[in-house]
Amino acid sequence: MKREFIVRALKARTDPFFNINDLPGSGGRMDLVARCISSALFVSHKIRRNTVIHVVLEGPSKPPKVVSFNGETLRKVSPDERNIASHIRIALKIGLSLKKGEEKEVSPGIKIANKSWEKLVKEKLQECKVFYLHAKGEPFETIEKEIDRNDRVCFLLGDHLGIPRKSELFLEKLGIKKISFGRVEYLASHAIVITHYKLDFIEYY
Amino acid sequence: MKREFIVRALKARTDPFFNINDLPGSGGRMDLVARCISSALFVSHKIRRNTVIHVVLEGPSKPPKVVSFNGETLRKVSPDERNIASHIRIALKIGLSLKKGEEKEVSPGIKIANKSWEKLVKEKLQECKVFYLHAKGEPFETIEKEIDRNDRVCFLLGDHLGIPRKSELFLEKLGIKKISFGRVEYLASHAIVITHYKLDFIEYY
Repeated sequence: MKREFIVRALKARTDPFFNINDLPGSGGRMDLVARCISSALFVSHKIRRNTVIHVVLEGPSKPPKVVSFNGETLRKVSPDERNIASHIRIALKIGLSLKKGEEKEVSPGIKIANKSWEKLVKEKLQECKVFYLHAKGEPFETIEKEIDRNDRVCFLLGDHLGIPRKSELFLEKLGIKKISFGRVEYLASHAIVITHYKLDFIEYY
Repeated sequence: MKREFIVRALKARTDPFFNINDLPGSGGRMDLVARCISSALFVSHKIRRNTVIHVVLEGPSKPPKVVSFNGETLRKVSPDERNIASHIRIALKIGLSLKKGEEKEVSPGIKIANKSWEKLVKEKLQECKVFYLHAKGEPFETIEKEIDRNDRVCFLLGDHLGIPRKSELFLEKLGIKKISFGRVEYLASHAIVITHYKLDFIEYY
């Protein structure tokens, strides 16, 4: 099963001019973004080679930017926030010279694109079964039978501010289902861990 | 349900003389320790008031030290690794003057003790249903019926090096069951997220 995640971070910095020692403040919650990447890609002593995570950054000063980490080819990245954020910063430096719609490989398994969240979601809809994770959605169990081990699946998540209402309507119009892990509102990084856990059961047992 | 976690970190620094900008190296994988604390205590915009996490640090130069974060009274802690590690460092500074067996409150919800992992486990066994999380254990489902919403439960986890074989025998002798979330070996911080998710289902639905 090929797994993808798209995390939208409304305030996360889109140029490299943030302080790596202050990811929550000067990075615009880049700590949260880094934790999502860590949750998506790492298991004990291994990288999930079947997983890609795209973080869509929409903060100052060059929005939007999509930084993608592909587990299949990723190397030399550690699970700690600071290391992941330093890779994002290198990507954003290269991103400064991108024209609209352009994308560039930064290092093995990492690329940056000058692309909107809406465009990325529409692209994924051509390739994957796409779901939107939200506490108020239908139980995850309702889609378990729709997913099998040969599928490509993609899960959309918001940050601490959530997906704006207008964007939720955009997802509704595309027919993307809202899926939940229950009443507890989990952090985005934790929702990614739970998604993997659920998919591991579908794929391996 | 009152929830506790005990994470044993064999190499994590036990004095405050590590570099907050190098948690994996100079902190002895203090990044891993911080992520476990973040996973145990945070949900979206809230702290889990029903949860305590104890991290047992056994690296240089003053092992062992137990730093406990109690969600019930915790304040001014953020979910990012650097912030959590800075609180651990303050605790370890106070820990320098502790005698064997002594413990001290550091700030609201944070305390440090000069106590071994074995002693802590035995204490918890008096108060809680204790389980050991390990990929090679019995399925979590086998204990679901043993836990109800009024219980106090405590889960033990190892770090990237795992719990030493000798300590596993110690747990076996105490009759502590080995419980698993399947064949995938999850990071300790991710195993904590999955445990909470499972307990949320028992407690809230």
